[in-house]
Amino acid sequence: MIPSFDDIKSTVKRVQPYVHNTPVLTSRIINEKTHADVYFKCENFQRMGAFKMRGAVNAIQQLSKHERANGVITHSSGNFAQALALAASTLDTKAYIVMPSNAPTVKVNAVLDYGAEVIMCNPTLDDREKTCGQIQERTNATFIHPSNDLNVILGQGTAAWEFINEVDDLDTLIAPVGGGGLLAGTAITTHYLLPESETIGSEPFGADDAYLSLKMGKIQPSINPVTIADGLKTQLGDINFPIIRKFVSNIIRVEESEIIAAMRFVWERMKIIIEPSSAVAVAALFRKNKRFIKRRIGIIITGGNVDLDNLPF
Amino acid sequence: MIPSFDDIKSTVKRVQPYVHNTPVLTSRIINEKTHADVYFKCENFQRMGAFKMRGAVNAIQQLSKHERANGVITHSSGNFAQALALAASTLDTKAYIVMPSNAPTVKVNAVLDYGAEVIMCNPTLDDREKTCGQIQERTNATFIHPSNDLNVILGQGTAAWEFINEVDDLDTLIAPVGGGGLLAGTAITTHYLLPESETIGSEPFGADDAYLSLKMGKIQPSINPVTIADGLKTQLGDINFPIIRKFVSNIIRVEESEIIAAMRFVWERMKIIIEPSSAVAVAALFRKNKRFIKRRIGIIITGGNVDLDNLPF
Repeated sequence: MIPSFDDIKSTVKRVQPYVHNTPVLTSRIINEKTHADVYFKCENFQRMGAFKMRGAVNAIQQLSKHERANGVITHSSGNFAQALALAASTLDTKAYIVMPSNAPTVKVNAVLDYGAEVIMCNPTLDDREKTCGQIQERTNATFIHPSNDLNVILGQGTAAWEFINEVDDLDTLIAPVGGGGLLAGTAITTHYLLPESETIGSEPFGADDAYLSLKMGKIQPSINPVTIADGLKTQLGDINFPIIRKFVSNIIRVEESEIIAAMRFVWERMKIIIEPSSAVAVAALFRKNKRFIKRRIGIIITGGNVDLDNLPF
Repeated sequence: MIPSFDDIKSTVKRVQPYVHNTPVLTSRIINEKTHADVYFKCENFQRMGAFKMRGAVNAIQQLSKHERANGVITHSSGNFAQALALAASTLDTKAYIVMPSNAPTVKVNAVLDYGAEVIMCNPTLDDREKTCGQIQERTNATFIHPSNDLNVILGQGTAAWEFINEVDDLDTLIAPVGGGGLLAGTAITTHYLLPESETIGSEPFGADDAYLSLKMGKIQPSINPVTIADGLKTQLGDINFPIIRKFVSNIIRVEESEIIAAMRFVWERMKIIIEPSSAVAVAALFRKNKRFIKRRIGIIITGGNVDLDNLPF
């Protein structure tokens, strides 16, 4: 099921009051290095530090009054946990977040600070799902998936909407792909606003299930993904994959060393903090530089939530 | 000698074509934490990563054609070395930079990348000055002081000009003070544009010569300053001190632990990279929070040049 242009427009109206219209930055050094005009949509400056706030806000708003009264639930140790917690408190909804017992304390505290109820479970997918099920039985809370949910996908697409409306004539948008919510949302939005432009995904070699899925024409499981870009370890879903298959022209894979180098380059030269998942998109630009020369490139910087005590450099 | 309003205006015209009008950022979290409206003028996004570009550009432009043909010279291991090198290459002037042999390789490389000639010397002030003198004798290059120079002071003041023109009704501007060029330039500009507002300096306890000088009414030597904010170890000069004495209402001193905590807070919450000297101004806001409640505060983020291999956290 492919969303319509009207779906996109009504999502923007719903989401915009609750999120920052994040700034677009440019870097003379990166333009000189790549011989391209590169624009960075800085979702690291978004509320809770990542684009995921957009999808969470949209998903909660699409619930009925009755559903909202019962609250929302997800399991996540990453940005979506914080996003759903903050979106829920912003929209006066109760959030239950199931987190694995090995989640960093700083992330658990952030979710608690946003007012959610945190339920710990063992760090296996089985136990995460089982715990979620138990809480749902007790509370009737609605489960919101971090990426394989049409309303989440549409919400994430609002970043591309703002981007395309601020920067004229982008030839290419590049977004990293993990679960696929951002990439699908970016691709469908770009399809309607800039039908002549292309959306490209970027992915670590160590977690390249989206690349393989696109190549095989059906979803490939993500088996033991290994990458510093921990936000990209999750796998594609059956709701976002058809959108990605239809509207994404290509997925560029990058090495771990390229991710770390791109992350450091952006920190040192642009003076902004980006997380490894964001650096994957920058690394894709650097790796396949030749194909982007003289073009107008938009890169979605997905977030800036890093652990300063565990930097890769 | 106090510059006139016309001096300020003509400096802005001279400098603006060669520098970025850097963005002003705000942070909901910092506003909530301080109960104030806080604006950050992000000179970490300036060319070469710090406000010092402004003063260097202005100083070179004020030279005669003959002087410019002979080039400019300074001794510095910090941001002014890069600033003078980049300003000189931007303005088609030759730059000689005398650097101590213990300067980090990354800084020497940055200066070389900007096209300057780097002359190494022993890491003592004596040898720096002696080496400068020898090069001047040979080349007739004009010495540009990093802070105790009226054209440098006026150039640094252009950051406050942009700031005040972008954000209405600032009650207070806060800038860190090392050599005093930025603080003097900010204070004189604020005096003309916002005569009812105050300019406050901020300084580490471990390098508080400006605080002591203001208190005693005459310049106090900076003896063995110890602070992580290495840009603030230099001492006030006889050209900027009279301006600071006349137009700066107060200097707030902060502890090293406060500097590091403020730096980390800004990195984690605002997702921008600021250097320790910039964190000194943020730490001053946090330390003396009570006096800023409900006020409109402008903080000059001086730069973002940090060594990622030597972070204090």
